[in-house]
Amino acid sequence: MISAMTGLADLDTPCLVVDRGKVAANAERLRTHLAKLGVPLRLHVKTAKSLAATDVVLGAGRPPITVSTLREAEQFFDGGYRDILYAVGFAPHKQARARELIERGAQLTVVTDSLETARSLSNARVLIEIDTDGHRAGVKPDSEALIPLARALRDSGNTVAGVMTHAGESYNSRGDAALRAMAEQERAGAVRAASRLREAGFDAPVVSVGSTPTAHYAENLSGVTEVRAGVFVFFDLVMAGIGVCRVEDIALSVLATVNGHRADKGWTLIDAGWMALSRDRGTAKQPLDQGYGVVCDLDGRPIPDLIVVDSHQEHGIIAHRSGGKAPALPVGTRLRILPNHACATGAQHAGYHVVDGAREVVDRWERFNGW
Amino acid sequence: MISAMTGLADLDTPCLVVDRGKVAANAERLRTHLAKLGVPLRLHVKTAKSLAATDVVLGAGRPPITVSTLREAEQFFDGGYRDILYAVGFAPHKQARARELIERGAQLTVVTDSLETARSLSNARVLIEIDTDGHRAGVKPDSEALIPLARALRDSGNTVAGVMTHAGESYNSRGDAALRAMAEQERAGAVRAASRLREAGFDAPVVSVGSTPTAHYAENLSGVTEVRAGVFVFFDLVMAGIGVCRVEDIALSVLATVNGHRADKGWTLIDAGWMALSRDRGTAKQPLDQGYGVVCDLDGRPIPDLIVVDSHQEHGIIAHRSGGKAPALPVGTRLRILPNHACATGAQHAGYHVVDGAREVVDRWERFNGW
Repeated sequence: MISAMTGLADLDTPCLVVDRGKVAANAERLRTHLAKLGVPLRLHVKTAKSLAATDVVLGAGRPPITVSTLREAEQFFDGGYRDILYAVGFAPHKQARARELIERGAQLTVVTDSLETARSLSNARVLIEIDTDGHRAGVKPDSEALIPLARALRDSGNTVAGVMTHAGESYNSRGDAALRAMAEQERAGAVRAASRLREAGFDAPVVSVGSTPTAHYAENLSGVTEVRAGVFVFFDLVMAGIGVCRVEDIALSVLATVNGHRADKGWTLIDAGWMALSRDRGTAKQPLDQGYGVVCDLDGRPIPDLIVVDSHQEHGIIAHRSGGKAPALPVGTRLRILPNHACATGAQHAGYHVVDGAREVVDRWERFNGW
Repeated sequence: MISAMTGLADLDTPCLVVDRGKVAANAERLRTHLAKLGVPLRLHVKTAKSLAATDVVLGAGRPPITVSTLREAEQFFDGGYRDILYAVGFAPHKQARARELIERGAQLTVVTDSLETARSLSNARVLIEIDTDGHRAGVKPDSEALIPLARALRDSGNTVAGVMTHAGESYNSRGDAALRAMAEQERAGAVRAASRLREAGFDAPVVSVGSTPTAHYAENLSGVTEVRAGVFVFFDLVMAGIGVCRVEDIALSVLATVNGHRADKGWTLIDAGWMALSRDRGTAKQPLDQGYGVVCDLDGRPIPDLIVVDSHQEHGIIAHRSGGKAPALPVGTRLRILPNHACATGAQHAGYHVVDGAREVVDRWERFNGW
């Protein structure tokens, strides 16, 4: 239990802080958008990896979710979730563990794009992974491999439940028009693949698409049955750089304390290094490189042009983004650092200290890691 | 307990594997080198964060150690260690927690380079951090700030136990001559600062230096009383790139399974992404960029020119380092990935599966994370 008097200034550092009101607002925004398009969200829980955080997004209901590990599937099953899509290409040796979850009552759906995997699976509910953007895995919507893959799955005794795709290349898109086009490309490719399966005699009821950028920029989801997205619950500097959110929408930050200076270099040192911030440098490829994170005051307001320019295991180096000298912040000053990538930064911690628009700590949410 | 029959092929993936014999050999090599120079090792435990792993390095004794967090100090204190150097610039609000450890019987030494911190501490045993290479924190050996800082510490009722320095710039040095020169620069700067303190009337008995490269390349440690090093226990691709170890000395790897292919791109996909490998790309700055890691077979032998060229949260992409196509490895193939940076990769996991030159899992070592 958190004492009513605990504030951010009382916490040891580094630690993870999340603003509950921002999580709720981020969730409401996407829910409203998808409701207009008439397609349900299948939340990806890999970002928060926390039942308590997910409750803020989904409420007390236990709607369908997406996971990136069997550990997530097991943890969320124990939290009452039943309809679970494991959205990473299935490795056949994981069948026993998956089956155990199914025997306990989960509707677990797995994905593959591999004929070898298809032949080794049995009694599984499977989505075929479709590649709509050349980003990672999947068979192309018009690939000659699609129908033989579906037949191999069926011949091994599996259910071909449909298709899934993830337009990860949307992370490299810039501007409303490009993001809308990417969303349409993702939709059209998935629908095309599903149509081909149906023409070949498969029911293939599910057409699952999604990434946080395309989920927010989609204008038409005809033929799509569900949208997956995850990082929007917290948002981060990469998403702000793409334009999917504003910096002030970012719900996650790392609380840190000033522990030294290098006046000759214009550096302020903090006790949050890459171990607390993660090594993720996702904004390095964007027009505005945010280093290891944007420096905010204890209320979460960015301090103009201050970023974490470098990091060591337990040291962060704060400087002006121009390389010019910034005024030194006194030793003991508490700061909040906005992360490049919420999924990566979250994973460095065991839980969240929860605030709600102020410095008071109103809750603590556990999270888990591992596989 | 690990069944005698458990082998690497039986483990779920991704997971962390460590070769105990390599850890022992790495430890023996540095111990022998430092014994010749007549200076004891103060092991940095931040890499393994594991009592069991540290036992392989240090044996049953409980010699002085170095930590990067108070959590490490507490965990290793509970494991019997008493003489603990917390080698990250001390943030004053951590005094209560540090004092608790001291009251339980620890000889905890902290470090600072800050006059503000010095004035806020009391009854602490302190090393003044010296900057011998412009890398991070510390006062220069000849700085006018050194003696006033020591006086401020004494005036506040602290013990000025001496100096410490970390030549982190050695990570950017190449070639035996440059590394030897960096070790000498680190030694000379620390000894110079300690001499100045002694001339000003401080005992300053401790002269603590170290980084894994300088610890291995030092030829003369006159005036130095202890050497700190950590990552050598596992070594990694960054250290191999510097030339401090061979690739075959690397004791740590991430076990992964092939779960798909992109024949059109020459990719093999595995179930270990950056969540299992870490986002660390330390070799990106080196002449030989190893991507997210070197791909080895199940026996730990590198497969020529195969590296993890890109990674997503739970996907790793293996390809030929040239960008050319590599033969596809069948779905289900188990691989071991050597990490860029052992400290970062270790931190993504809760423990180590231990082997000893073969595929049999002979032990499991717990590790901890957090602050």
